Amino acid sequence: MEAAIGIDVGGTGTQLALVREDGVILDRVSFPTDRYSESQSFIQQLLYQVNRLEEKVETGMRIMGIGIGAPACNSRKGTIEYAANLPFELSFPLARIFEERSGYPTRLMKDSGAAALGEKLFGGAKDFDHFIVITLGTGLGSGIMVKNEIVTGAYGYASEFGHSQVPGTYRQCGCGKTGCLETYASASGLKRTAFELMAFRNTSSPLRRYSFLDLGSEQIYQAALEGDPIALEIFEQTGKVLGASLANLAVTLEPEAIFLAGGLAQAGDILFKPVEKHLHQNIFPDMRDRIRLLPSRLGHNESALLGAASLIFKMQPSFTS
Amino acid sequence: MEAAIGIDVGGTGTQLALVREDGVILDRVSFPTDRYSESQSFIQQLLYQVNRLEEKVETGMRIMGIGIGAPACNSRKGTIEYAANLPFELSFPLARIFEERSGYPTRLMKDSGAAALGEKLFGGAKDFDHFIVITLGTGLGSGIMVKNEIVTGAYGYASEFGHSQVPGTYRQCGCGKTGCLETYASASGLKRTAFELMAFRNTSSPLRRYSFLDLGSEQIYQAALEGDPIALEIFEQTGKVLGASLANLAVTLEPEAIFLAGGLAQAGDILFKPVEKHLHQNIFPDMRDRIRLLPSRLGHNESALLGAASLIFKMQPSFTS
Repeated sequence: MEAAIGIDVGGTGTQLALVREDGVILDRVSFPTDRYSESQSFIQQLLYQVNRLEEKVETGMRIMGIGIGAPACNSRKGTIEYAANLPFELSFPLARIFEERSGYPTRLMKDSGAAALGEKLFGGAKDFDHFIVITLGTGLGSGIMVKNEIVTGAYGYASEFGHSQVPGTYRQCGCGKTGCLETYASASGLKRTAFELMAFRNTSSPLRRYSFLDLGSEQIYQAALEGDPIALEIFEQTGKVLGASLANLAVTLEPEAIFLAGGLAQAGDILFKPVEKHLHQNIFPDMRDRIRLLPSRLGHNESALLGAASLIFKMQPSFTS
Repeated sequence: MEAAIGIDVGGTGTQLALVREDGVILDRVSFPTDRYSESQSFIQQLLYQVNRLEEKVETGMRIMGIGIGAPACNSRKGTIEYAANLPFELSFPLARIFEERSGYPTRLMKDSGAAALGEKLFGGAKDFDHFIVITLGTGLGSGIMVKNEIVTGAYGYASEFGHSQVPGTYRQCGCGKTGCLETYASASGLKRTAFELMAFRNTSSPLRRYSFLDLGSEQIYQAALEGDPIALEIFEQTGKVLGASLANLAVTLEPEAIFLAGGLAQAGDILFKPVEKHLHQNIFPDMRDRIRLLPSRLGHNESALLGAASLIFKMQPSFTS
């Protein structure tokens, strides 16, 4: 059987996995990303971890290549760029350098695009050629499949749906703009909505016990489960903003399905119901049956690694730089 | 030289042209669409007009096929459907019937998608593989090219960007929804904004002389040219809504260019400047140089016909029904 190494480069930690072509993760290792502010030592550490995984290759198994997902990169050029959430100060051609140093074909893609590839190969999108994966974590990532290809845009920077603008809103976004969708539809957006609602309403709520630093989406979810009106309103408002924004994408691209993935998607119906309500309100009635809103079918902790490995199993075009 | 027949099916009139493969229109004919509420007699009339154009074919010239653009159709199935602006009550498989009856390969696509194909073959998009054409007429049409292919969606109904939702707005749209982009960014949207502003402001304006039935975008344009503050504010508001909506599409799809076409685009800088300002405000600063806002380079009266003929010159996949 063939295998690939999938690498998920995150702001705090980088994970690597040896992935069999049937989607089974054979082994995984990780190291803290934030100890490496300089690309050479980061690549050195990556190579060391790849070597560790190579030792786990079973008899008769071949590693076909290395797929890397990263939050800020150019999927076309294979470079790490604009990495506000990564510790590297400068852009660097990670795919090319790593291909030379490791000897394996190496592909790099935005983590959300890789997640969409993973959903196609190993998850709930096996039968779809037109679909969207929205990853709801600290921010909002988007992977868009059109006619069985990930949309990377003219220059490799496409799929920044999380930074589309919600008119009439002005929350400061980490990207420098204001009113971006991810300032609402993400774990951090949920918290901001919580604080806005606690300021606006008089209703008592268990959420009032937490400082801004202490409150997490987990507490908001728990409060909503217990029927707290403020927590429920947070999910309703989040669903309104996200559902309406997804509707605009839906009437424009007409996907077969929209998958919600990432930590926040674990909230289940408490999130999905309001998103679906507002999605349906804003698309044509006859589209409601055709465009499905679905949870990702990849395990929450496996999604990024399977997605990265998918870059190799469903080999993407070589980088151009 | 090869040629194609391009057909533009409109709500009031249907135009046909014999188009040479270098984009020269050799002859054109037309007839009123609204006399035909029933598909059989409409197709009969279309065939008669095609025969008239066949007589104009030059020696050594061959008609490769027939391309049809229509405002409400399924680009994948080749059917006229949901034709709110067309007189036909029922859906019908226009491409298949016409192919059988005429003997020519026949393709049908949404007129805005055809316009994007035309821009690629004969207009300003020759060097682009990722671009968007927005046609601003009575409504707002969108043609989206991703990796040199028109986006038709999972089922053939994609590209209804004109019916994406402008949050916080509630104008009734012809489609049955409220707050659709085309209730603002279109000739009819311009007029609605005019009436809203005349109600809101005290400023005198030459536009106050017109009834709702009499006012057209031409009068608003003329008033803006003469410096009328209300007319200028109409274009500013239109640019704000359209620019911000285009920005959301731009960060998501990262096109090389966005073309504005159709009657309203003839307004030039008075429209383009505010659209560009708000587009730029809502995309990442480094995208501003890469994503160009351009006027269509197809003649306003030729765009739909050249686009329809392009369906044949750049042969689209056969319909599937």
